[in-house]
Amino acid sequence: MANFKGHALPGTFFLLFGLWWSIKYPFRHIRKRERQCGDGDRDRQKHTVLFNRIDLIEGALKIFFALLVSYKWIMAEQFVPDGPHGHLYHEGWVKLMNWQHSTMYLFFGISGIADVLSMSSRHVPVGLDRLSLSLALFVEGFLFYFHVHNRATLDQHIHSLLLVAVFGGSANTLLEVFKRDNMVLEFSRSSLAILQGTWFYQIGFVLYPLSGPPWDLETHDNIMFITMCFCWHYTVALLIVGICYCGVFWFSKWCDRRQAGDMEMGLRKCTASDSSSQKALLQESDEE
Amino acid sequence: MANFKGHALPGTFFLLFGLWWSIKYPFRHIRKRERQCGDGDRDRQKHTVLFNRIDLIEGALKIFFALLVSYKWIMAEQFVPDGPHGHLYHEGWVKLMNWQHSTMYLFFGISGIADVLSMSSRHVPVGLDRLSLSLALFVEGFLFYFHVHNRATLDQHIHSLLLVAVFGGSANTLLEVFKRDNMVLEFSRSSLAILQGTWFYQIGFVLYPLSGPPWDLETHDNIMFITMCFCWHYTVALLIVGICYCGVFWFSKWCDRRQAGDMEMGLRKCTASDSSSQKALLQESDEE
Amino acid sequence: MANFKGHALPGTFFLLFGLWWSIKYPFRHIRKRERQCGDGDRDRQKHTVLFNRIDLIEGALKIFFALLVSYKWIMAEQFVPDGPHGHLYHEGWVKLMNWQHSTMYLFFGISGIADVLSMSSRHVPVGLDRLSLSLALFVEGFLFYFHVHNRATLDQHIHSLLLVAVFGGSANTLLEVFKRDNMVLEFSRSSLAILQGTWFYQIGFVLYPLSGPPWDLETHDNIMFITMCFCWHYTVALLIVGICYCGVFWFSKWCDRRQAGDMEMGLRKCTASDSSSQKALLQESDEE
Amino acid sequence: MANFKGHALPGTFFLLFGLWWSIKYPFRHIRKRERQCGDGDRDRQKHTVLFNRIDLIEGALKIFFALLVSYKWIMAEQFVPDGPHGHLYHEGWVKLMNWQHSTMYLFFGISGIADVLSMSSRHVPVGLDRLSLSLALFVEGFLFYFHVHNRATLDQHIHSLLLVAVFGGSANTLLEVFKRDNMVLEFSRSSLAILQGTWFYQIGFVLYPLSGPPWDLETHDNIMFITMCFCWHYTVALLIVGICYCGVFWFSKWCDRRQAGDMEMGLRKCTASDSSSQKALLQESDEE
Repeated sequence: MANFKGHALPGTFFLLFGLWWSIKYPFRHIRKRERQCGDGDRDRQKHTVLFNRIDLIEGALKIFFALLVSYKWIMAEQFVPDGPHGHLYHEGWVKLMNWQHSTMYLFFGISGIADVLSMSSRHVPVGLDRLSLSLALFVEGFLFYFHVHNRATLDQHIHSLLLVAVFGGSANTLLEVFKRDNMVLEFSRSSLAILQGTWFYQIGFVLYPLSGPPWDLETHDNIMFITMCFCWHYTVALLIVGICYCGVFWFSKWCDRRQAGDMEMGLRKCTASDSSSQKALLQESDEE
Repeated sequence: MANFKGHALPGTFFLLFGLWWSIKYPFRHIRKRERQCGDGDRDRQKHTVLFNRIDLIEGALKIFFALLVSYKWIMAEQFVPDGPHGHLYHEGWVKLMNWQHSTMYLFFGISGIADVLSMSSRHVPVGLDRLSLSLALFVEGFLFYFHVHNRATLDQHIHSLLLVAVFGGSANTLLEVFKRDNMVLEFSRSSLAILQGTWFYQIGFVLYPLSGPPWDLETHDNIMFITMCFCWHYTVALLIVGICYCGVFWFSKWCDRRQAGDMEMGLRKCTASDSSSQKALLQESDEE
Repeated sequence: MANFKGHALPGTFFLLFGLWWSIKYPFRHIRKRERQCGDGDRDRQKHTVLFNRIDLIEGALKIFFALLVSYKWIMAEQFVPDGPHGHLYHEGWVKLMNWQHSTMYLFFGISGIADVLSMSSRHVPVGLDRLSLSLALFVEGFLFYFHVHNRATLDQHIHSLLLVAVFGGSANTLLEVFKRDNMVLEFSRSSLAILQGTWFYQIGFVLYPLSGPPWDLETHDNIMFITMCFCWHYTVALLIVGICYCGVFWFSKWCDRRQAGDMEMGLRKCTASDSSSQKALLQESDEE
Repeated sequence: MANFKGHALPGTFFLLFGLWWSIKYPFRHIRKRERQCGDGDRDRQKHTVLFNRIDLIEGALKIFFALLVSYKWIMAEQFVPDGPHGHLYHEGWVKLMNWQHSTMYLFFGISGIADVLSMSSRHVPVGLDRLSLSLALFVEGFLFYFHVHNRATLDQHIHSLLLVAVFGGSANTLLEVFKRDNMVLEFSRSSLAILQGTWFYQIGFVLYPLSGPPWDLETHDNIMFITMCFCWHYTVALLIVGICYCGVFWFSKWCDRRQAGDMEMGLRKCTASDSSSQKALLQESDEE
């Protein structure tokens, strides 16, 4: 996958997941808060079922992506007339790079399976989905770490910057095993996923420029620029996640207001109790 | 112990412990949940005693293994007619490698002693058993780290991959000192133990191949393959632990159903209260 | 910014923030304790509003500083007649160092924005302000880490000591996301900020001495002295924070005593209940 | 202090503290448990005061030691007729090594001051004593890390093993800031202090042998032996702490029994309620 497309594909994958998470989590938190303000038992039931179904689909999509990538690769490179036909060793290791990439996707597939299991059975230990995602990111970073040996300086550097995002995401998700449903952690996980996504694109642009002259892979100035560029990518990622959070919040408020036309009285009561419970919460966290 | 057997022995040790843990822990959790659903005080007492006895035996086995390995080694290499007869220094250090391996086993013996103490006295601080296991794994990794100095590249790499499993297990067990009886941590500890077990075998196969030509210990491709292979081992370890968990769960369900023939009414009540408490738990973790 | 002023500026910035924090936090804790001892609801309201406003101003100041520095730099170096006029690339990267420094300030600006948002809306997740400050410090350290490549030994060493303070502060603030309003963490954050401030000055004095001969940047003795010097800086930082804490405490006691002239009876009751709640707290933490 | 005595002095210091802690902490826990079993309010008061006084003395001793060492050194090396008379710089840095050692003692003095403050005022934030001890250990390790540059291989290695004990102790104490009065952490802190103490002696014996030929500082076998030896030291440290814990426990039991001659009835009741509360505690930790 040593070309631009090979980097754009995982980049798109992470970008989409980052965006999706930065919409899903604030939405869930807003719904959860609303449930606390006196909605009927029927509504609560409905929302829990809805979110479980969404998580189920998310897991299924992960499995699907992992299978798709593996399948495409198998068809494209393994079983062509003069391909290795699934042999890993034939007078030396065959297409090791591709096997490595498949291994990475394999662990994201496992993470998908853990998601599906967590949602479909109540006997699966809480936090297994987060642990498997953390593991998938760790394995990705682990393989990348030994991946870029013996390459040009800038090539190594740009990949080691990727590792910051990957291992950062892995550590973040590991924390979520123990601090589940923590908004700050979900916020930073979303932003790190988007960072990874855009950075994969950046790697593609630098190593396989679509136009213009190739980059000088040994100059120190280029390394310094790329380091700084990584920080700018994160600024953009933070901005995107921030906008998504605000968007979801305003959209949810607008929906509530429209609903209020139908049943004005009920909402007014709810808002009152909501704000008072909010105040209590604020004092509580203040005195913690 | 620089031969295949020397790597197969600890491999078997960790493999067995990993398998044993992946049966013991889900079993304990299922029993604990059942106890909460209205079983008599007599049953609860019975299970607590049973699990304490199992932990006691586990500790005793660790001590026994540690002693056995030390004894066998002492008889085989120390007190043969021209052996060093227990001398550590005789015109240079004598059989340092063996002393190092014995030191590793010593700490697993200490861990066994801590297990036995924890179970036999209620004055031993809670968590000492986990701390001593974490320590034993740390010492194993610590000695391995300085063990492979000045060796071939692949030899060093394959041992440093082992260290990932060893230190991962140590950190995992250290967390369990503070988050006791956390199913996710027990799950990952079991899988890391199995990974260590199978990886010891892999090291044996690579460095002392039973048949076929020896591996080229300097090629970069071999290093890349071994790194990837490590991930596959972990996939297998996760699969094994997953199957054990499912197996224990289904076996336990099947037992309950057979028991239900005897006392149908009691169980039905219990299941109802169980599922309702489950629902409460779900909501609680949801709102956390 | 490779001159004395370029190091004095951020030094002053951190020094001021460290001093400010070591006054703000003990003050807040004393007020919080007083609120618990039966003050009217009116007083409590007043103090919460006061402290929120202070945090708001702190955030605004951060944004203002970040903008000011960027603006000054843009005017001074970018848009002079023969400057690069905002171009980053013109036959090689232009003024990379300055762009790097601006990037650091950018993240402190983001931290300021997070502060302002946290205070002005109750929908922003609790802990986002701390996370963004931790991130700003991490980015600072991250850029510094790649900043000092290819320099003299002492230059590298003196900057890597700075990294100890920077990453220490970042880790400290990250912990505060989860352990909010922990006095010990606030104490050490204040001291680390002051350490960073004074150390920036020290770097300036060593690399760009105002008078006297330049330092020998390669002698091992100089490196050993600078390492030790770093510890002395921290001693001073601890001393300063300690004095601030004591000062705030005594000032607050003196205020209370003066107030007591007006309404003696109320205070006496308050002190009694305060000391008894203190005793209860002491026992509680004792038995924890 | 590059002689045997210079290593024996801090070794004795840490050994004594380790032994003292491994007696103080189990004693405190046993007394705390007894207080919970219905002793009068008078007894509780008495014990709290006793333990506070003990901690006060411990802090004062730390300050005293730190001052004594500094004083002795100042008298012995600074103000002799041809000494540097307190000058740090005189045609090059003067006696840097000694200044470094004094800096280490300085931070243990600060830790002592924090102990004294914590015990004498209830306004000092809880955990400051642990934080300052953690800091003192960190500074010790930090200075040692840059201390052994450019030395023989074995010299470097034996000091880097010391760092394992030092940084381990620092991390352990940092955890205690947040998990105060955790018996397992206190146990491991005591053992790490003893390990540090005996290892200082070991360093003295290896680098400045009292008798016999000097060690070969470059052989790889010596390095391997020393690594293993470090593990044996820890085994001994664990054994010592274990014996102290058991000793304190049995001594306390023996005292209780003697006391029981005087007031048999009261104790019997107490034991009963104690064991039942123990059982409740066991179940609680079991179901956690």
